[in-house]
This record gives sequence, C-alpha cells and structure tokens, in this order.
Amino acid sequence: MPITTDDLQELRDKLGERFVTDQRAIEPYGKDMSWMLPEGEPLGAVFADRTEDVSIALAWANAHKVPVSVRTGGSGLAGGAVSYPGGLIIALHNMNRILEIDHENGIAVVEPGIINAQLNKELAKEGFFFAPDPASASMCSVGGNIATNAGGLRAVCHGVTINWVRALEVVLADGRVIHVGSKTIKNVSSLNLKELFIGSEGTLGVITQAVIRIEPLNQYDNYTFFACFDSAEDAGYATVMLRACEPRPVSLELIDALGVELVNKRNPDLQIPQPGAALLLGQAEGENAKRVVEEYAQVCREYGATAVQFEEGTRLFQVRRDAYPALSANGMQVIGDVSVPISRLAEAIHGIEEISVKRGRKVSILAHAGDGNIHPIVECGEGTEEAAEAESLLDEVCRMAIGMEGVVSGEHGIGHLKHAEIDHLLSPDTRSVQRAIKQALDPNNILTPGRKI
Amino acid sequence: MPITTDDLQELRDKLGERFVTDQRAIEPYGKDMSWMLPEGEPLGAVFADRTEDVSIALAWANAHKVPVSVRTGGSGLAGGAVSYPGGLIIALHNMNRILEIDHENGIAVVEPGIINAQLNKELAKEGFFFAPDPASASMCSVGGNIATNAGGLRAVCHGVTINWVRALEVVLADGRVIHVGSKTIKNVSSLNLKELFIGSEGTLGVITQAVIRIEPLNQYDNYTFFACFDSAEDAGYATVMLRACEPRPVSLELIDALGVELVNKRNPDLQIPQPGAALLLGQAEGENAKRVVEEYAQVCREYGATAVQFEEGTRLFQVRRDAYPALSANGMQVIGDVSVPISRLAEAIHGIEEISVKRGRKVSILAHAGDGNIHPIVECGEGTEEAAEAESLLDEVCRMAIGMEGVVSGEHGIGHLKHAEIDHLLSPDTRSVQRAIKQALDPNNILTPGRKI
Repeated sequence: MPITTDDLQELRDKLGERFVTDQRAIEPYGKDMSWMLPEGEPLGAVFADRTEDVSIALAWANAHKVPVSVRTGGSGLAGGAVSYPGGLIIALHNMNRILEIDHENGIAVVEPGIINAQLNKELAKEGFFFAPDPASASMCSVGGNIATNAGGLRAVCHGVTINWVRALEVVLADGRVIHVGSKTIKNVSSLNLKELFIGSEGTLGVITQAVIRIEPLNQYDNYTFFACFDSAEDAGYATVMLRACEPRPVSLELIDALGVELVNKRNPDLQIPQPGAALLLGQAEGENAKRVVEEYAQVCREYGATAVQFEEGTRLFQVRRDAYPALSANGMQVIGDVSVPISRLAEAIHGIEEISVKRGRKVSILAHAGDGNIHPIVECGEGTEEAAEAESLLDEVCRMAIGMEGVVSGEHGIGHLKHAEIDHLLSPDTRSVQRAIKQALDPNNILTPGRKI
Repeated sequence: MPITTDDLQELRDKLGERFVTDQRAIEPYGKDMSWMLPEGEPLGAVFADRTEDVSIALAWANAHKVPVSVRTGGSGLAGGAVSYPGGLIIALHNMNRILEIDHENGIAVVEPGIINAQLNKELAKEGFFFAPDPASASMCSVGGNIATNAGGLRAVCHGVTINWVRALEVVLADGRVIHVGSKTIKNVSSLNLKELFIGSEGTLGVITQAVIRIEPLNQYDNYTFFACFDSAEDAGYATVMLRACEPRPVSLELIDALGVELVNKRNPDLQIPQPGAALLLGQAEGENAKRVVEEYAQVCREYGATAVQFEEGTRLFQVRRDAYPALSANGMQVIGDVSVPISRLAEAIHGIEEISVKRGRKVSILAHAGDGNIHPIVECGEGTEEAAEAESLLDEVCRMAIGMEGVVSGEHGIGHLKHAEIDHLLSPDTRSVQRAIKQALDPNNILTPGRKI
C-alpha cells in the first residue's frame, strides 16, 4: 500500500516538528562517509529526542511496512545508514546526553548520539575513559560504535566495543522497548541478547540507550615507538612477537611504504624515515612504559627493523592519524576492512600488493596490525563507476582473506557495500540462521532491509 | 507419536555402540551436581565421539520430537543437563581432544568434553593458559563453560568465558552443522551468533568444537593477601576501591564469618584469624606483584580491616578452595548465584543475613566480590522437600538482588532450578524475544526444552 498524506499526518500528529519531510533538511541524514548514495528520496526523517519518538516511528513504519534506516554520527563506511527510497530515516543525533557517570560501578549511561570523542572528554574530567576509539572518534557516535561493534587503535589491548557495553535499551521493529544486559559485571540470566544486538547494524532493533563500562584513566605517561621494515615478513613476525609481549602494546599499527611517503609529504616535520616495506608504530602505557617501549623496540630490531625510534608522549602517533587524510588527498579513497589471523599478516600484505599490481591500481595498506585487521585503501577517481571498480578490487582482497581463514570485515561492518562478500564467507546454513533470527525479530523486514545479514 | 523399537533401531544402526540404552550405564549422564533428579527414564544416550554423531542424534530427535539434554562434565548447579523422561541424552565426555595449540595466533582448537583443568595443564606445558576457572575446574568441561558462559576466580581481571572464545562449531536442532565466529581477533562480518550460542545452555544448539583464546602464562610470582573485616560495609567499600586499583586484582574473593569458621575447623593449619563479618582474599600477579599486593593490603587497612596479611604464592587461596567443601560437609549445600552492581555488595550481604534470620535457616556467603557475584549457600537437610525450602529462600534472595539492579544468575546459569526467577527479572517483551529466537532455531522445541529461556 502506498503511503498517503493521511499516513504521514498521523506521524506528524504524534511527533510534531521532530518528523521532518523537507528533503533539503533531511538529505545529510540519508548518507554516510562511504561512496554510496541514496537511490531515491526518503519519505521523511524522525529527529528523535527520546526513546518514545523511536518507538512511535517504528510502530508506524512497521504498520505501513516502510523501510527504515538508522543514523547517528554518519561516519559509517559500508553504507549501512544510507536512506531507502520511500523509506523513513531515524536520526539519533539529538539523543546525545550522558545520563549518568557512576564511579563506584565503573559504568556510564549514555544516549546513542553522543560523539565518541565528546564522551571521552567528559569522562576524562572525572578520571575515566571508554576504550573504543575508531579513527573517526571526533565524529562517530557511541550508538554507531555499538551498532557496528567498532574497534579502533586501542582494541589490541582493550578489546572492541562489545567488551565495553553492559546493557542496552532497544526499540524493536514493532515499537516495543526492551532492556537487555544489566549493570552488573557478570550476568548469565538470559540469552545473550545484548551481544546479539551489538554489531547488528540496525537490522534487529534501534539502540536508544546504553550502559557502558568505563575504566580509570592511566595516570602514567605514554611512550610511542616506530620501526621501519624493509620486508613485510619481518614486520609480520615482529607483530606476532610484540602482541605476545607482557604487557601487550596499547596500540600496534602498520602503515605501508606508500602511506608513509604521503604522510611525510603532507607533514614534513614528522621526519619519519622511509621504510622499504612498512612502518610499525606502537604505544606502551603504565608505570613501566619507558622500559616496556624499549623492549618493544628491541623486539623490532631483532626482527630486522632498520630504523627504530621511541619517545615519550603520543606525538609520533600523529603519523597514524595523518595517514588516511594523506591518502584521501591523493585520490586513495575506497577503504577495505579485512581481518586475518595475525600469523598471516605478512602473507595478506603480499597478496594485496599482488592484486594491486595485477589490476594496475594503487593500493596502500593501513592496518591495526596487532589485531590482524587490514584496511587496504584503493586509488579511485571520481564517480560511482570508478568506486565500483575499486570495490571489485576489494572483493578480490576479501576472497583472498577468506582463503587465509580471515573475514571480510573486522570493524567497519557489512552494511550494503560489503553485502556481496558474505556469500563467500558464510555457509548457506549459517546464512539461514541469520535470516531466521531476522525474521523472528523483524517479520515485516523494515529495519535496514537487505543489508548486513 | 510414541517412539517404537524400529525408531530406536534406526539410531542404533547409525551409531552402533555409541547409542546406549542400558539405564544403569546412562544414569550418571542424566544428572548434574545440583539436587535436581530426573523425573523418569530417558530413552537412551548418545556417547558422541565426533560431530557427525551429534548431527545424527539431533536429526533423529528432531524428526521424532524427542527432548534432548546435553551433558559434558556434569558439574552444573542449575539442573540444565538433567535428562528428560523419554528423552535422549547427548553426552560429550568422549569428545575431549585438544586438536591444535596455535602459539602464533594465541588460540587452541578443542572439543567440548575436555576438562578445564586438564586443558590448562596441557596449555601450561606450552606456556599458555585459558582464563575461565570455575571452582569446579577439575571436573567441569570447556563445553560446559561455554554453554553457561562460566566465570570463576580470575574473572575479575581476565573476564568470563565469552571473552575467551573465538569461534564455535554448532550442531543445530535439525542436525545441520554451522560454524560461527572466526580465528581472527576482530570480526564483524555476521550477526554475533557465536555470542548468542555462548551461555545458551543447550537451548539453541550443541557445541561440538571451539576455537578458544589462550594467553602466555605469567612468568612472575603470585602474591596473595587476606584481610579481616568486622563489617560488611567496610568489606564492600574496600572491594570497590580494590577493583579500581591499577592493576586490578587477579582474584578478589569474599568469605563470610561462618565460612571462615568452618574452613578453619576443617583445616586448622591455615590459621586464618576469625573476622567479625567477612574475609577478603585477593591475588596480584606480574612483575610488581609484591608491591601491588602491599598496596591492596594498605587499601584494606584504610577501609577498616582488622587483620591483614600477605605472602608470596597461592597457599592462602586454599581458604577459598576449601570453603565450599567445608560448608557442604556442614550441611550447607544449596547454592545461589546472584550478581549485583559492586557498589551494592554490602547491602546485598546484609539483605541475605536478614532473610537468613527471618527464615531461621543458616546461610553462608561466598562471593566473587570483585565482580559483585554472590553465592549464598543455604543449610539444607536430606530430601527434595528440604532442598525446595532452601530454593525458596534463594528465590527471596533473587528478588532482593533484582531490587538492587542485580540479576538472578552471575555464572551458574538458569537451567531448570532458576527458571522461575526470570519471571521477576525479564519483562514479558524481553521473554518474547527470547522465545522468538528459540522458535526460529528450534521449532520443534527439542533442545533442553523448558529451561533457561
């Protein structure tokens, strides 16, 4: 049944100005940071201010079988939040309050629209931090972090978002509101529904509140090291050894030779020596950070690093932060996200290089090396045709990763752009289990349809 | 349709001697360590030797709508593995192999029947450990740990089982075999099905293989401290402060005055001073363990501890290990498992004391204090009527915990014995989501029916 003016009025009556149909006003909320564009105009957007708004919107969408896209920070890279033609956008950016910071229990209660970096700024004032820290921390939301089970630079030591969420308030497809998880540290009183909603990318429900774990801020200085390698194998072996160090590095990143070259051009003050193959960059924190980082440096030397340097603070880490902007500025814009067992990191890097040569298209590699999570970043001209070409290269990278017992997304999610990849990764039976759960929770298939699952 | 001799022969033809119908032979596999007894004889048991056996058994049970109980170590405390009258037992104790220990990737591939302590013994030979360590480590299986998302003494520092599992092989209700999760550290390529099966207590599928995370063994000595408190409040405050220490204690346990009294009687060599209210017992490990444990001891003194002592090694921890056997030997045998936000630990201890006095029935308290996970252990005579009385006391404890934003099970699971408690904890809508998922994955309701969910 097509949606009538009366149907829209019904939603307007309930939500007032929070239901927006002016296409210019809602257009930014129908896109994310990927190259994917909406295929047609959505009906409108709900700029939710509270859980009840989301509940009203979903009950309406469910009754009218209108597809829903959910958007918080809009920093997604897989097209997961892109609006549907004739669909409804649920935008959560106004639900961005920190409702409680509970020192004794080490938890905070937050709304999904709070920006990751803003949350950490507020937590730091009270001596705490929330570990998930995607490179997009300044614009991504905690709700989006939860919906994609985001990782980031500190994941190697502190784990990913699922390790930092205690409980969720979720609005189901039909508008009912449930609470999953608990404020307690341990809980086996129900099925792991909280874990099921985490990383489900808006396909099973809309997260409207979260109880997150927070931890006391490290009171010691950080130390940062870098090490240049002339071979990817050496960098790979060093990564495996560094990961096994006690304590584990807080961050352990890899930037390939092309990436370092572009970062040095963009920011010559950093004066990073040009590696033949790759730069490893890492951090230690805590009481013995200086001695620990010296040990990391020594491991790198033993595994063939040519230039090794370390210093107090996090200045060197600017290299990692500059890398993606430097690559983007040079026309390398389409980003992949495969993950492999870390023992196969070097092999994966070589494989990506081979694919790049074969296709005659530049690919640079940034990796959360300590996690085996690799972002190949592909050269790409203007236009969706060029982007689709780049995606096709990444499709080949995905199949290579699967051949190494790897997976097609480590932290960005599947969304729309990686959806074809899961055909190669998941068996028909595993897919059928996903679909059965989707059908059970969203029988009208209104929540982010056709993506993720 | 009642099961015919031909139906049984069908299973015997496929499984040979691994399908056992001699009631004396299967009787031990129809019970766990709780007071719950089977209500009638099962049809038989499959002593599975490989995944295919489980697949054959479930396909058969599903076709004939026969209820299935799943049993590995049999150390459960909630009746989750107790057999059903006319049901089929799937016993996994013979699937107890370690298939691979992968040093580079920090993972091991194991079958579900491997005993937790046996696994850690084998891992230790290669310099690794698997952190989940229930008090029943010498008899519980890793498959059972996963099925209940078990915790243990080290959970305060190292997390619970879900933090130590990378991937699972699962046999679905209809006999199909799926693989969920991956060997990679990070993976957001599918719904979190692995996490959904973990802790599902046999209601959604049968786990036949697991890729677990392993970590390098600590090369330093351990130090252990104890601290006696004359008030539960003081012990509670000290717990909150100790948990916030950097580094966090590896273990942080509480034993109430009655527990200490009985342990001292049983093992006078330990010479633990008798606390007025509770004993806190904790461990530090790592390079600075001695200094760290001194800091813990100082925190305890600041928060009112009367006697504080620490020493190298783990000898003192014998108190904790002896506590449950000492209580059992004194007729205290029915165990609860509530979890509360740690800020409310003292309040919960007081609440349990009040319930004990009101009911005129002794209750001792052991707690994984650092996790807020409390085991009230209730005095109980012979017979199921006495046990049901004790359970009724625990029901009151559960409702008290819920009133403190706590939950009814922290690590033992819901099984049968705690099933009534979830009516108080979970909303009808949350229950309906659980049931919808159960229905989607097990439409004939053959897998551990009527429990957990």
